[in-house]
Amino acid sequence: MNLEETRKQAASVITSADLLKHWQGHRSLTRRVIEAFPEKELFEFTVAGMRPFAAMAQELLAITAPGIRQVAGHGTEELNEQLDQAGSKASILTLWDEATAEIDRYWAQIPDERFHERIVAFGQYEGTVWSTILYFIDNEIHHRGQGYVYLRSLGMEPPYFWER
Amino acid sequence: MNLEETRKQAASVITSADLLKHWQGHRSLTRRVIEAFPEKELFEFTVAGMRPFAAMAQELLAITAPGIRQVAGHGTEELNEQLDQAGSKASILTLWDEATAEIDRYWAQIPDERFHERIVAFGQYEGTVWSTILYFIDNEIHHRGQGYVYLRSLGMEPPYFWER
Repeated sequence: MNLEETRKQAASVITSADLLKHWQGHRSLTRRVIEAFPEKELFEFTVAGMRPFAAMAQELLAITAPGIRQVAGHGTEELNEQLDQAGSKASILTLWDEATAEIDRYWAQIPDERFHERIVAFGQYEGTVWSTILYFIDNEIHHRGQGYVYLRSLGMEPPYFWER
Repeated sequence: MNLEETRKQAASVITSADLLKHWQGHRSLTRRVIEAFPEKELFEFTVAGMRPFAAMAQELLAITAPGIRQVAGHGTEELNEQLDQAGSKASILTLWDEATAEIDRYWAQIPDERFHERIVAFGQYEGTVWSTILYFIDNEIHHRGQGYVYLRSLGMEPPYFWER
């Protein structure tokens, strides 16, 4: 039995269903962070010359649906952060909800054994399927944490981190 | 077969070894973020009245070693963020490295089936062992993302997010 087979036979510490719920829980919180921004500040406010939170949300959107399609084995797509139809808070939230449905839809197509296969997401990010998904989640938490600083800088209270 | 048994028998999508490596990789990046701060700014610089990054690092330290001991089944501990011996960058980094060794030591004591058991970390945070560990990691990513804004506000380049 080679290493890969040993890994596949190891008992589960996080199941596919756990990981999906974990991701969607984080996405639900990020949605509320997007919602918390006033319209103008979502697109214009920055700290230290960093991107406005709308640009970070667009990065997350650029990753999510194309990312889950690749994870599910539907070929490679290029990363495109220039999204049409993301010019208002309402439209970003609509795209967010569409991506939520896409995740649920494609997740159902991922067999458990697929999580340990290697992929090159967006033609450039090498990893296993599980590590790629965790990277998507981690990247979202990272930028959302930055969004919390923006909200605080605007004198606003961000949603509780532990509410998913 | 009840739900719990079904979960345990599901194929692994993230193994115990995967999760340990994932956590330690994140901790290695956070260590470099702590190191990147100048001594004075680590303890004094803030954005929007938030805590200095040293206080966030102390929170992470307060969670890490006591958290892994609880996860490994060694009883409940209270959360204590008032750490002695965390008054300089060098001492925080020393505590960080000690926590790294603690994680490795106690992780080896966690059987795979333990990850789906329910615990009440620090006597107040309910969850499964796997979700508790992910919460520790997510909380670290969240605050580290805030540390990135602090470093940018100080005119400094943070370490690359993808370097672990």
